[in-house]
Amino acid sequence: MTYPTLSLDIINSFSDYMQHQQPLVHCMTNEVVQSLTANILLAANMSPAMIVAPQEVEQFVSMADALLINIGTLYSARADAMLLAVQTAQRLQKPWVLDPVAIGSLNYRTSFAHKLLGYHPTVIRGNASEIMALAGLSEGGKGTDSTVCSTTALPAAEKLALTYKAIVAVTGKIDFITDGKQGWSIPWGSSLMTKVVGCGCALSAFIAGYIAKSEDHFTATACACAVYALAGQYATTNSEGSGSFLPKFIDALYNHSYQYMAMSSYEKNS
Amino acid sequence: MTYPTLSLDIINSFSDYMQHQQPLVHCMTNEVVQSLTANILLAANMSPAMIVAPQEVEQFVSMADALLINIGTLYSARADAMLLAVQTAQRLQKPWVLDPVAIGSLNYRTSFAHKLLGYHPTVIRGNASEIMALAGLSEGGKGTDSTVCSTTALPAAEKLALTYKAIVAVTGKIDFITDGKQGWSIPWGSSLMTKVVGCGCALSAFIAGYIAKSEDHFTATACACAVYALAGQYATTNSEGSGSFLPKFIDALYNHSYQYMAMSSYEKNS
Amino acid sequence: MTYPTLSLDIINSFSDYMQHQQPLVHCMTNEVVQSLTANILLAANMSPAMIVAPQEVEQFVSMADALLINIGTLYSARADAMLLAVQTAQRLQKPWVLDPVAIGSLNYRTSFAHKLLGYHPTVIRGNASEIMALAGLSEGGKGTDSTVCSTTALPAAEKLALTYKAIVAVTGKIDFITDGKQGWSIPWGSSLMTKVVGCGCALSAFIAGYIAKSEDHFTATACACAVYALAGQYATTNSEGSGSFLPKFIDALYNHSYQYMAMSSYEKNS
Repeated sequence: MTYPTLSLDIINSFSDYMQHQQPLVHCMTNEVVQSLTANILLAANMSPAMIVAPQEVEQFVSMADALLINIGTLYSARADAMLLAVQTAQRLQKPWVLDPVAIGSLNYRTSFAHKLLGYHPTVIRGNASEIMALAGLSEGGKGTDSTVCSTTALPAAEKLALTYKAIVAVTGKIDFITDGKQGWSIPWGSSLMTKVVGCGCALSAFIAGYIAKSEDHFTATACACAVYALAGQYATTNSEGSGSFLPKFIDALYNHSYQYMAMSSYEKNS
Repeated sequence: MTYPTLSLDIINSFSDYMQHQQPLVHCMTNEVVQSLTANILLAANMSPAMIVAPQEVEQFVSMADALLINIGTLYSARADAMLLAVQTAQRLQKPWVLDPVAIGSLNYRTSFAHKLLGYHPTVIRGNASEIMALAGLSEGGKGTDSTVCSTTALPAAEKLALTYKAIVAVTGKIDFITDGKQGWSIPWGSSLMTKVVGCGCALSAFIAGYIAKSEDHFTATACACAVYALAGQYATTNSEGSGSFLPKFIDALYNHSYQYMAMSSYEKNS
Repeated sequence: MTYPTLSLDIINSFSDYMQHQQPLVHCMTNEVVQSLTANILLAANMSPAMIVAPQEVEQFVSMADALLINIGTLYSARADAMLLAVQTAQRLQKPWVLDPVAIGSLNYRTSFAHKLLGYHPTVIRGNASEIMALAGLSEGGKGTDSTVCSTTALPAAEKLALTYKAIVAVTGKIDFITDGKQGWSIPWGSSLMTKVVGCGCALSAFIAGYIAKSEDHFTATACACAVYALAGQYATTNSEGSGSFLPKFIDALYNHSYQYMAMSSYEKNS
């Protein structure tokens, strides 16, 4: 299978389309990244909401346009609420994204992530170690860091995509997106992004927003990764370290500065 | 009832007074905005503390000068601790603020917010959809976003204020503050504030700090909203998007830059 | 006992050494500061992870190089998980740091902090009020703020260090580090740091990273405090308030700007 670089025309037309969708994204995510996640979605004209109570998740999934399940902070009460949410999403055919944070070496979350697979996530996003662990092909990374590069995880990604009829995004210096039959690559990752907590987690929520109202989940996922990576390049170029990166990154999403980056990145990397 | 624009003299004299109060504000707020809330209060020379355990809330309410109850992240354990806190506040006659986040369409939190009303909040702050839902006059907004403008909610605000003998603040592009008999308006809202998660939530905590040691809760609430809105205008003018807004906003509160904004805003909008 | 100022040579050689360690730091910390803590550790080339479930803490402590226990957000489920973590750390001889946030006036957390002392923390870090309360010599501060200056807490710090064979760091305008027999002082604190929530909490995690792979926990703790204080001075000089402080502070850690500050601070303050 080949992974051609996603074209600029597709990226631009999809990101224009996204400006008018304002999807309501139900984010069940970890304690560390909730604020970052919300601000990134708001900058991109999406409406995030972080509802976690078992008394509320069914009602809110039915109102939302898409659901994110990120298992970064996992304990039994929240796991129960997450199960209720994905069951509701499956019943109502709402698209949902699974982010299997730090699985592999931690048994509890690894087995929970496998259980969630049974409810057919629309998209699975993780780093290379996480995707390999989810496919049963490795023992995971070091905490939340991947210990292998994205290309190593492609067989695992393709296997997962075919087995669960899901889109799989392996993100890193190069992002790869596949549905098991076709693939795109996004060669615009910034190393600074790995120095800011939650950039990967928030990308999963960002993908949820992109697939929320789209028929073509495969292209939507790839475009979300591309816009995110280009905004990251813009912020890297315009910041002085990992502290000033985040305001610049959110400004770039807010101001569509990624469109300015796209042309030069495309010429340089493709 | 009329809602004249709050005068600059009142705003300035109240914000000068606040510099020397250093109120200890007990913030029971949602998981997404705790850090933002604390930083905003610290910038304004207040002492925030986020105590949530049922074993500790009674003791801490008795030490604090004011209490904030924000139901954004609601689940049963935290709801129980919140009840304990407001019961203590009522018993000890400590002023407290209710922020009924996202009520209306979600039954669990709507019924919990109504229960809290029975403990007589000193101030209720919400967007128009939340205030209307609390008064039983609508089914709420879209997640945390209001779907109507502030003026639409004035009958609901006045009804709530009279029924519960509370100050009600409906915030948005224009803020309206009423005790059911008199009102103020604050016409200085910035749309950028709706693109940063928790600006409304943190305003509720900010109001708690303003009413903490004041006899005149009505004026205190209006001045809190005014200072906050003016700092928001300053930050909007001096930032490049929703990412750089927040550092600028907190700097503005820290440096009293709102006093610089006040004059020009007053001339323009009043 | 005397507390000479830590020398620049020691600071610089230790911070050079730290660049190649990449310790995996298990941070069990409060809800308010998780994101800040992670970003500060990432900027300093450490790998933070925030694992809280009782099902996972034993497994993760055994993988991690050091553990932080911060009791800022305390409730019974998290307290149980923390106990499990420190028992594991003690059994496996992993270094761990105790941050006894806001103890003294709140009975529940004060008694829990005393219980944790029984598992022999490698380092205890707190403000003066917290260290005095932990040693049983005062009733604590005002919420998370200290009500006394660092020097007042030196007898308490020395007593704690000797009794529990721990390193004790009392931080504030001047930081004092002692093992009960010898001491260092770090006279470079910035008042702006007290206006940003979690700077003290994140310092405890930063210390955990410094002691993670070092034999000399006493020097490691002092160097962590020194680098942190110098980065704080750099950020204070280069920011316009408590809002812009944080991006500058994290950039300073990322870019090693503290080495630039060290020389001038040393000349000025020593």
